Amino acid sequence: MAVGLIEPDSLLPVKGIRLSAIASGIKKNANSDLVLIEIAQGSHCVAVFTQNKFCAAPITLAKKHLSLACPRYLIINSGNANAGTGEQGLNDALQSCQLVADQTGCKTQQVLPFSTGVIGEYLPLKKISHALPELSQNLHADQWKNAGRGIMTTDTLLKGVSKQFELQGKTITITGLSKGAGMIQPNMATMLGYVAMDAAVSRDVLQQCIKAAVRLSFNAITVDSDTSTNDACVLIATGCAENDPVTEAGSDDYKQLLEAVTEVFMYLAQAIIRDAEGATKFVSLRVNSASTENDARQVAYTVAHSPLVKTALFASDPNWGRILAAVGRAGVEFDPGKIKIYLGDVCIVSNGGRDVAYTEDQGQQVMQQSEISIRIELNTGVQSCCIWTSDLSYDYVKINSEYRS
Amino acid sequence: MAVGLIEPDSLLPVKGIRLSAIASGIKKNANSDLVLIEIAQGSHCVAVFTQNKFCAAPITLAKKHLSLACPRYLIINSGNANAGTGEQGLNDALQSCQLVADQTGCKTQQVLPFSTGVIGEYLPLKKISHALPELSQNLHADQWKNAGRGIMTTDTLLKGVSKQFELQGKTITITGLSKGAGMIQPNMATMLGYVAMDAAVSRDVLQQCIKAAVRLSFNAITVDSDTSTNDACVLIATGCAENDPVTEAGSDDYKQLLEAVTEVFMYLAQAIIRDAEGATKFVSLRVNSASTENDARQVAYTVAHSPLVKTALFASDPNWGRILAAVGRAGVEFDPGKIKIYLGDVCIVSNGGRDVAYTEDQGQQVMQQSEISIRIELNTGVQSCCIWTSDLSYDYVKINSEYRS
Repeated sequence: MAVGLIEPDSLLPVKGIRLSAIASGIKKNANSDLVLIEIAQGSHCVAVFTQNKFCAAPITLAKKHLSLACPRYLIINSGNANAGTGEQGLNDALQSCQLVADQTGCKTQQVLPFSTGVIGEYLPLKKISHALPELSQNLHADQWKNAGRGIMTTDTLLKGVSKQFELQGKTITITGLSKGAGMIQPNMATMLGYVAMDAAVSRDVLQQCIKAAVRLSFNAITVDSDTSTNDACVLIATGCAENDPVTEAGSDDYKQLLEAVTEVFMYLAQAIIRDAEGATKFVSLRVNSASTENDARQVAYTVAHSPLVKTALFASDPNWGRILAAVGRAGVEFDPGKIKIYLGDVCIVSNGGRDVAYTEDQGQQVMQQSEISIRIELNTGVQSCCIWTSDLSYDYVKINSEYRS
Repeated sequence: MAVGLIEPDSLLPVKGIRLSAIASGIKKNANSDLVLIEIAQGSHCVAVFTQNKFCAAPITLAKKHLSLACPRYLIINSGNANAGTGEQGLNDALQSCQLVADQTGCKTQQVLPFSTGVIGEYLPLKKISHALPELSQNLHADQWKNAGRGIMTTDTLLKGVSKQFELQGKTITITGLSKGAGMIQPNMATMLGYVAMDAAVSRDVLQQCIKAAVRLSFNAITVDSDTSTNDACVLIATGCAENDPVTEAGSDDYKQLLEAVTEVFMYLAQAIIRDAEGATKFVSLRVNSASTENDARQVAYTVAHSPLVKTALFASDPNWGRILAAVGRAGVEFDPGKIKIYLGDVCIVSNGGRDVAYTEDQGQQVMQQSEISIRIELNTGVQSCCIWTSDLSYDYVKINSEYRS
């Protein structure tokens, strides 16, 4: 059960984007597993990829193609990650792009491939080749929800959101999809995000926009600290809204745009945490008054990754000693006597120990909620960060220890 | 159930050391919970302590006392960590040392205090004061096993070992105790280790010896990445064996000594992992041919802390993709095409993907054992490391999420 998340009733079409999804047979359960996204000529497209050294074949190829040409198609399969597949994996990813190019009449390097699913198995190219004619015939602007379903693996629900805002008197539409629930059963790798808008934006500015938005969203979530081999996030600006192109990162137009894009990214990133494997809690972790943003993130991630903190969250146990101990081992300089830790609005730690006014009842009340905020005041500077995480439940162990079927 | 570990039949007395243990009532279950260790005059004693910024009051005080005088007594309680207790915690720890000093006639600064148990509750000084006369009267050289029981918290069995070896024609005896099974229920903090030998060793050399031995033992184990607020390890050399003092760290005598001490430390450290919370597997993780030892440790700990690797180990699932993905995100430079990963003697990864000769059956056979070795060859240099860890089971979640009783 996802925490405080429901599927979107509808997702708005974005001028310049057509999508299509099909059950090609890659997934054993006959669910939709192959998605084609068409991007209008003249669009700009930027992406960020996993930092994992063992990045999957499609990631290697997508990076290369993105450096060579402006993409016209994204081909995305679920059910198979094409990761840990060596030389053949790269050839298979290239072939899948060639198949799309042949079908649509674009160049191979104008196709970006993405895969998510089982690690270490070869991509079933015949199934992709067989499904492509129907897939490309069915491209349509209103297929966002079906595309969202086609990229799901162990996600329990479709994750997508739309937003509209005014820019230079024109209505701009942004729609985005994400998937990912950890990196799981059996090796169902990957967080993926696809966001498109019809605003006109220069490529440089779009690049800055994705970087800034990802930092506050997809790079601020953690289920279990495991970075997948296939993580990718794509941001497209089709320019079909016919605004004057946003070409300066300092401009007011850019700020408006960034705010809207960040909002969509944050929704999509948080949706992944709300639907994390076995999650029963959605936890916001804020670290304030740090010397550097890096310090703040270090403390936040140490607390978020602590199995002891995560099991206490699962148990709704206001076990402040575990939070304190995790902060203490984060490798960041601070004065233990000056730190303050809050559960919701309740101060639990001050002066190096339990706050004198704190009562277990107060902590219990906060911990019983399904949405919990933890705030840590380091009192060493003015930097801060906010990240989101989930708890560690029996179901997490169950999902991740069940033998590969 | 501890993995491949049984209690020692007996532990050998060490000349110059007397011990005593009692049930003082700090633990609610009436088990032994207060231990006094007497160290003969003329001994040397060194220690290493937790790096946690929120180190407990007894740690702060033990560090101070150790810098002022040569310890004559260690007073150790289980059931209460005296951590997160602020100024009063420090006063309580000091008082407990004063009580021991009054009882035994030594100076307060010649007493080192240690505590393990619940975080955030004040030390019950009256219980300690009440128990001290009997505790000091019962000091005896053959009480190592009882002392070992007195420091246990959620440990399922006593952890101790003795070893004898010849140095300059004299028989040297080393006996050691450890406790710790994670940092757990409810905040049962702490790994503790106490090792004494009757060899004569200068303080400087003893300091080098503990540093070298800890690096290969207590600093090479991880249950859940949570460093406690109370971790401490003590090494004592009483000199009662009457060998010529070992005063040079480069000497053959030192090498012999270090080898024996390291062996004892490794046994005690591995015992903690074998008895880790909910552990069903004992896992040795070796990283070879790294550019730096730091790289090797970084890779080893990233794999050891990965919840996905740990749940696969629990499931006896030869899920090599998860190991590969963890290695890939360790933040260490290497060529993914050159790395090799072995499960036991079975090569599972080479040339950037699954080894061509690997079959799932081979992996399955290794994973079904309760003792599993994973070896990673980075092929970037000549450095290596070995660490030990446990799996992530339902019982780990159970033990750590049950509400504090």
